[in-house]
Amino acid sequence: MTQHQLTENGQLKHFLTIEGLKRDLLVEIMDRAEQFSSITGRQVKKVPLLRGKTIMNLFFENSTRTRTTFELAAKRLSADVMNLNINTSSTSKGESLLDTLHNLQAMHTDMFVVRHNQSGAAEFIAQHVAPHISVINAGDGCHAHPTQAMLDMFTIRRHKEHFPNLCVAIVGDVLHSRVARSQIHALATLGVGEIRIIGPKTLLPRDCQTLGVHVYHDLKSGLKDVDVVMTLRLQFERMQGALIPSSNEYYANYGLTDDTLAYAKPDAIVMHPGPINRGVEIASSVADGEQSVILEQVTHGIAIRMAVMSMALGSQSTQQESSS
Amino acid sequence: MTQHQLTENGQLKHFLTIEGLKRDLLVEIMDRAEQFSSITGRQVKKVPLLRGKTIMNLFFENSTRTRTTFELAAKRLSADVMNLNINTSSTSKGESLLDTLHNLQAMHTDMFVVRHNQSGAAEFIAQHVAPHISVINAGDGCHAHPTQAMLDMFTIRRHKEHFPNLCVAIVGDVLHSRVARSQIHALATLGVGEIRIIGPKTLLPRDCQTLGVHVYHDLKSGLKDVDVVMTLRLQFERMQGALIPSSNEYYANYGLTDDTLAYAKPDAIVMHPGPINRGVEIASSVADGEQSVILEQVTHGIAIRMAVMSMALGSQSTQQESSS
Amino acid sequence: MTQHQLTENGQLKHFLTIEGLKRDLLVEIMDRAEQFSSITGRQVKKVPLLRGKTIMNLFFENSTRTRTTFELAAKRLSADVMNLNINTSSTSKGESLLDTLHNLQAMHTDMFVVRHNQSGAAEFIAQHVAPHISVINAGDGCHAHPTQAMLDMFTIRRHKEHFPNLCVAIVGDVLHSRVARSQIHALATLGVGEIRIIGPKTLLPRDCQTLGVHVYHDLKSGLKDVDVVMTLRLQFERMQGALIPSSNEYYANYGLTDDTLAYAKPDAIVMHPGPINRGVEIASSVADGEQSVILEQVTHGIAIRMAVMSMALGSQSTQQESSS
Repeated sequence: MTQHQLTENGQLKHFLTIEGLKRDLLVEIMDRAEQFSSITGRQVKKVPLLRGKTIMNLFFENSTRTRTTFELAAKRLSADVMNLNINTSSTSKGESLLDTLHNLQAMHTDMFVVRHNQSGAAEFIAQHVAPHISVINAGDGCHAHPTQAMLDMFTIRRHKEHFPNLCVAIVGDVLHSRVARSQIHALATLGVGEIRIIGPKTLLPRDCQTLGVHVYHDLKSGLKDVDVVMTLRLQFERMQGALIPSSNEYYANYGLTDDTLAYAKPDAIVMHPGPINRGVEIASSVADGEQSVILEQVTHGIAIRMAVMSMALGSQSTQQESSS
Repeated sequence: MTQHQLTENGQLKHFLTIEGLKRDLLVEIMDRAEQFSSITGRQVKKVPLLRGKTIMNLFFENSTRTRTTFELAAKRLSADVMNLNINTSSTSKGESLLDTLHNLQAMHTDMFVVRHNQSGAAEFIAQHVAPHISVINAGDGCHAHPTQAMLDMFTIRRHKEHFPNLCVAIVGDVLHSRVARSQIHALATLGVGEIRIIGPKTLLPRDCQTLGVHVYHDLKSGLKDVDVVMTLRLQFERMQGALIPSSNEYYANYGLTDDTLAYAKPDAIVMHPGPINRGVEIASSVADGEQSVILEQVTHGIAIRMAVMSMALGSQSTQQESSS
Repeated sequence: MTQHQLTENGQLKHFLTIEGLKRDLLVEIMDRAEQFSSITGRQVKKVPLLRGKTIMNLFFENSTRTRTTFELAAKRLSADVMNLNINTSSTSKGESLLDTLHNLQAMHTDMFVVRHNQSGAAEFIAQHVAPHISVINAGDGCHAHPTQAMLDMFTIRRHKEHFPNLCVAIVGDVLHSRVARSQIHALATLGVGEIRIIGPKTLLPRDCQTLGVHVYHDLKSGLKDVDVVMTLRLQFERMQGALIPSSNEYYANYGLTDDTLAYAKPDAIVMHPGPINRGVEIASSVADGEQSVILEQVTHGIAIRMAVMSMALGSQSTQQESSS
């Protein structure tokens, strides 16, 4: 799968999954984001890097927040952005989805940002678009959400010195979470000392061992002495599936509160991909507390997306220049 | 309330209500709009004043016209604009509205333009956003619609010489109108000689006296010798509440027709915030007649919004520059 | 009708229909598009030609594809674009539609791009807007779709040498197709040697003779030795009206397959305005085959729309400059 994402020179072409990417590339994304991070605080937040490029947000699944950050990232790079909310039902036949894609790419589009409720959708699209087009995965089913994972890594790096020295815990519905899957791959690739996943058996993957993580079903034991607590959003549809008795019981057992957070290191940071369910995954006092970096994550999301977009289109233009 | 809107140096920070603002500031807004007014007629209607700024239109209540004018104003100032139609139901809990806001401001947003069906919403938001963010009220419940009032004042100033010499009548549902409330505050602040409100008892506020206005229940008497007739839009939901017998009866008593307009001064101008209900508040012959300045109001709405946006963000940037 | 579309100097002002336009003007549009065509393949696809111009997409009928190409064309000309999806029901009274238009034009709009399900809507709007505004017809009822016809002509010119030498066949529901009407006018104006229309009697216009076309009810005879096959999209609502027995039967008689295409010249090109119904109007092997130029049409659509937009607004600015 790695080859699909990189050019022959090893530069980023698509950004579909963290899995299989090298540590150096992840560091390059974060270093690039660091530069853009200073830009977003400036008076004029725009750079002309992608002027004249056309980026299409293809959202088959609704997500105002993620779409907004991608749109803002594109605009701050001076690209032209088009938002297309594609009704899944009208493109339920694979063939007709491809026709839509081929039409959109015929408009000299440079990049598709894809959000889809089916795992593998971004990968499928990347395989079927013309060679000059980059595809960014903005979340596909339970599979991957690589820009979310990278903004999380970037946020950790801003607060903690050295990945190998860290112990990081991911709490919640790891089994169904594309965020968690991408986080685990990113943490592992960056050489994090210890990765823990914490949750009830029904919400943890069975192949935990192969992921190289430590599994905890008890929150307090799992949080013991960790440097980073990454909470996950509880998908309420899981409860209908009887995987979770109730949100109250979930909170009682796995909600991050002042009491449970006290088991982590005193300078541990608390993260959440948003939007948060207060009193379900996390207590308000923790979400708004001093150890929370949840809103920083949102801010860094723009810089990370600017980095990924400019790298993917930058590598492309180098290719085109050399071939023309 | 004034303090919330101004910086320590007395410059515009938020624009939430006309109430409490000084005459000089209202004049400054109109003078600034005068400059932008010449721009909108030029071949290239853009100025780079807000390049790199991010403005978010937060419309909790639908309004294509108002959103369009704010979006156009922002684009002509070269800002990046994002339109977010926020479903009130999904943010019905105050806490979750704040989470949405905090997330949006974490994206390095510079300004929120807020439209909401609850009075005080823009004020509430202004109190809870970070210090670097400006909030513009684009209409909140029955409370205020300050940019509408300022474009009305600007339109009057274009046609009439001196506010203190004027007699201005506001006709219709003053009680439930945020437009009327803001108009009355603006007219009073600018020192208009006489302000009249005209309508049935059920549609006029009970505290009329404290507003410093003259009350008329008879249209002809109320229009006698006025310089400006400001008609209001009839909200049809009022009729269901039995405050108005029928739109026909309303028109018979309070509709502005050639006959009733003849009671005003011969050079009186006719205004309406739009969209107009022809044959309800106003006869087509009057709406399209020589004394009507209704479409001028729309045009001036862009210049006024450019003025308010650039002043609010301009005062901010001065602050930031001096502090950095 | 021609006069409505041209300035006194014979330059394009509106673009409402091909009917009545001179050959030279159609050639000028294609020549201009040729220039833009090279731009869209460049690294930076933008030109500052319409910077500061405001273009409003008024779509009374939904069409993501056409709206997207107009929006892209406008953005690549550096114009500001506003998308307004106007609910036909709220503007069902002609008067209130005019009020909406007058309001939008009061915002210093320069161009309306209009899509409407009623024939004549764009023409109606062009007659009622202020003199400084250009109107582009993006499809009105069964009447015309002139930019589609011009991108088709442009695509033909890219592949075939000389219009007078060509034999062109249009296959399908010509009767209800605004695309076909505009294509026939454009082909005739450009002096195409022979124009054929092919379809069942229920789907061909009765006044075929006056159109100067040859009529075929048998697909194979109609395709014999043609240079260009233009297939039309089958509107499924026609089947409910019992004009077509079933899509299977339509395909059996009028579907373009490898077998039927073999009757055309070996180097014939195959076109379709999209979106295609595979296995109804056209076999997948033909749509994706070597003779298909369907996706080229999409690409050329942007250049053609850039050409028309810049010509319409260019002629305007010349006017304004000379009058000021």
